[in-house]
Amino acid sequence: MGHGGGGALSAELVEHLFAPAFGGRALSALADSAALELGGARLAFSTDSFVVRPLFFPGGSIGDLAVNGTVNDLAMSGARPAYLSCGFILEEGVEIALVARIAEALGAAARTAGVEVATGDTKVVEAGRGDGVYLNTAGIGLIPDGVDIRPQRARPGDVVLVSGAIGAHGVAVLSKREGLRFEVGIESDCAALGGLVESMLAVTRDVHVLRDPTRGGVAAALNEIASAASVGVELHERALPVPDAVANACSMLGLDPLYVANEGKLLAFVPRAEADAVLAAMRAQPLGAEAAVIGECVEEHPGMVVARTGLGGRRVVDLPLGEQLPRIC
Amino acid sequence: MGHGGGGALSAELVEHLFAPAFGGRALSALADSAALELGGARLAFSTDSFVVRPLFFPGGSIGDLAVNGTVNDLAMSGARPAYLSCGFILEEGVEIALVARIAEALGAAARTAGVEVATGDTKVVEAGRGDGVYLNTAGIGLIPDGVDIRPQRARPGDVVLVSGAIGAHGVAVLSKREGLRFEVGIESDCAALGGLVESMLAVTRDVHVLRDPTRGGVAAALNEIASAASVGVELHERALPVPDAVANACSMLGLDPLYVANEGKLLAFVPRAEADAVLAAMRAQPLGAEAAVIGECVEEHPGMVVARTGLGGRRVVDLPLGEQLPRIC
Repeated sequence: MGHGGGGALSAELVEHLFAPAFGGRALSALADSAALELGGARLAFSTDSFVVRPLFFPGGSIGDLAVNGTVNDLAMSGARPAYLSCGFILEEGVEIALVARIAEALGAAARTAGVEVATGDTKVVEAGRGDGVYLNTAGIGLIPDGVDIRPQRARPGDVVLVSGAIGAHGVAVLSKREGLRFEVGIESDCAALGGLVESMLAVTRDVHVLRDPTRGGVAAALNEIASAASVGVELHERALPVPDAVANACSMLGLDPLYVANEGKLLAFVPRAEADAVLAAMRAQPLGAEAAVIGECVEEHPGMVVARTGLGGRRVVDLPLGEQLPRIC
Repeated sequence: MGHGGGGALSAELVEHLFAPAFGGRALSALADSAALELGGARLAFSTDSFVVRPLFFPGGSIGDLAVNGTVNDLAMSGARPAYLSCGFILEEGVEIALVARIAEALGAAARTAGVEVATGDTKVVEAGRGDGVYLNTAGIGLIPDGVDIRPQRARPGDVVLVSGAIGAHGVAVLSKREGLRFEVGIESDCAALGGLVESMLAVTRDVHVLRDPTRGGVAAALNEIASAASVGVELHERALPVPDAVANACSMLGLDPLYVANEGKLLAFVPRAEADAVLAAMRAQPLGAEAAVIGECVEEHPGMVVARTGLGGRRVVDLPLGEQLPRIC
């Protein structure tokens, strides 16, 4: 299960198995989406499969995830998401009404995100060879001129921003799956970030890195960036916005919010000179209202993420091996 | 199972469930791929999921299918296939060596087809919630200027061509799955058709329709075209190239070769004036060496496919309800 978790085991699979087999240059860039040139246009291209369990959870569904997950991967290269493909793998016997509800959620999420579902496919497998509904989406977006956003561009001196509170998606899915009820209901943050990214790029095209901390959470995302750019990341742990409800749920469940998946948040590495203006632009957007500075990029300890803890100590934030919560998206 | 078979039940799902939910214009065009405009480029965009059982079969594997299936969907709009995405859904416990063999087959097929695997994703589900490996690919290609190939463009007077012998893929997969052995080994025709299409377009850009007769076979493909363009199709049944080995296997298995899936063949509707030249161009290519005229497009019986049988009779060739052979691709 760990190989699908978006952590060290997933990275190994890509590095040692898929990248050599496919032989492409794009895969090895380790970005959320590939940047391509086609017919004179600069395109971002990305795919994700979705196997979340349960199919509906507080704040969203597999249909919302399938749109927002891929739209956000495109937005993390600065692209304006435009078109999605959508593949359904249905398990024999799944209720058509359930498939219809998922399709409606997917369609509504696409309209909200401003993308068009342009092409699709449906396959059916025997009962016991699937789990109701699996989805895949791939997406295409247009990268504006002058934008070059990728993990390798993190530079010492960059300020690290997060667009809002973390940990809600993973906790919402897990609580629904396990039938837990918290006093304060926790809803997934699942949302499309294309508009937020546009508002940031309106301030400066010189955003260095964007990343949505999904599987493996903020910890995995920061580790991947530190490793790709051979820079260190200092994380100000106290500055991380973690809602009390999420913190309490995590401590009950034995989870660390730093490793919990988010589906409507982004991390940004921006030059120090632009950080205040970018932060202000983010806070002016509903999806960035709680944006905060959470750290900085440093020359020390390249490839490593080090957290300054609340008590003035320091600890290494590792890349997770697998995923604390399987089938979270 | 029938809803995934590419026949009437699949069409119903698209028409009554997905198209209204997604609200896009592209899905309703019923083409193998969507034709899009992005950044000034004319793109084809398509996706397919692959759930074939077994994963390896005579003449190919799920990795070959995942490349050629999507590449061919792009080529069927006249596009030159360029980039693929690739999503793996692995069942917990599947051997990494098996995944590696599939990835290698996929990489090799991509190189043969001249496309790059640009982006990917891996998810893992619990044992008993999948079947070893499911794949999804989406693809992007560039549509040359002046090319407008889609089912709606079939016109009375068009000549219907097939690029070679039909029925091999379905029979090869089924025989492997059921442990059957025929005297003459039958291998899947799985192949990428981008080069063949280019050679046809070098003769004339005025090719009206291209379609690869996969799930549901030649019968489903011709019915979809007849229905999309509101034209009749006359099929010269004796002209259909069906190898003896396939014909014999089909009669043993109770299958009609007209309904059996192909993964390396195309049907073309071309103006009568261009038919001889296009046919010659096809025959000059290895993948079109056995190309043949198999029928014509007529004004009579719009929406219907009628076969002239060997004995001079006529019969209606229906759209299959589901698929004779589930999980054939």
